[in-house]
Amino acid sequence: MPSSAIKPGCYAAIFSSQRTDQDARGYEEMSKRMEALAKTMPGYLGIESARDENGFGITVSYWESEEAIANWKKNANHAEAQHRGKVDWYKEYSVRVAKVERAYEMKKQR
Amino acid sequence: MPSSAIKPGCYAAIFSSQRTDQDARGYEEMSKRMEALAKTMPGYLGIESARDENGFGITVSYWESEEAIANWKKNANHAEAQHRGKVDWYKEYSVRVAKVERAYEMKKQR
Repeated sequence: MPSSAIKPGCYAAIFSSQRTDQDARGYEEMSKRMEALAKTMPGYLGIESARDENGFGITVSYWESEEAIANWKKNANHAEAQHRGKVDWYKEYSVRVAKVERAYEMKKQR
Repeated sequence: MPSSAIKPGCYAAIFSSQRTDQDARGYEEMSKRMEALAKTMPGYLGIESARDENGFGITVSYWESEEAIANWKKNANHAEAQHRGKVDWYKEYSVRVAKVERAYEMKKQR
C-alpha cells in the first residue's frame, strides 16, 4: 500500500478492467513486468492493485504530474502491453486520470 | 462497471483497504448494504470494487461534487460502517478524494 507520498496535488491513474476468459498466456508475467517498469519511471509515487475471482480488477497508480502519466502511457514497452491488453486480455476497461485533493490513511499498530 | 456518467469534473473517492484475518462476521452483509445505500445518495454516479484473495481491496465511487462525498461520508449508517471497519475489519486503509480530469473507456462488441 502506498505511503504518505500520496498527497494533495499529485495525480491518480485509475485503471479498471474486466479480463477475458481465454488467452491468459503471458498476462501475469506482463502485469508484473509493467508494475516493475512503472516503478522506474520519473514521477512515480505508488501503485495499488486488486483483482477479484471474477476477473474484475482495479489498479491505481499515483504520479507527481499529468506529464509523468503521459510519459508512462507512451513508454514503448507499456504501449505494447496496452495493445496486447486491448486485443487479448480485456473485455472492457476504463481509465480515469484524477487530481488528488485530499488523502488520509489509517494503519493499526502491529 | 460505471458507464459514461464518469466525466471530467466529477469526483472519485478511492478507498483501498487490507482486511483483518479475523472477525469477518457481518462484513459481507455490511459491504453490500453500503453499496446499495451509496446508490441512493444525491450526486452518486457509480461504483467499482475488487478485492483479491489476500484481502486487499480497492473501491472507487464516483460523485458529482465534493459536497456529495462529504454528505455520503457523514450519513449515519455509513458512519456506523466506517466505525466497524476501523475497529474490526481493516488492518489499514487509505482514502483519496480526487477530481477527474480525463476519462475514457473501451468495450468490446459482444
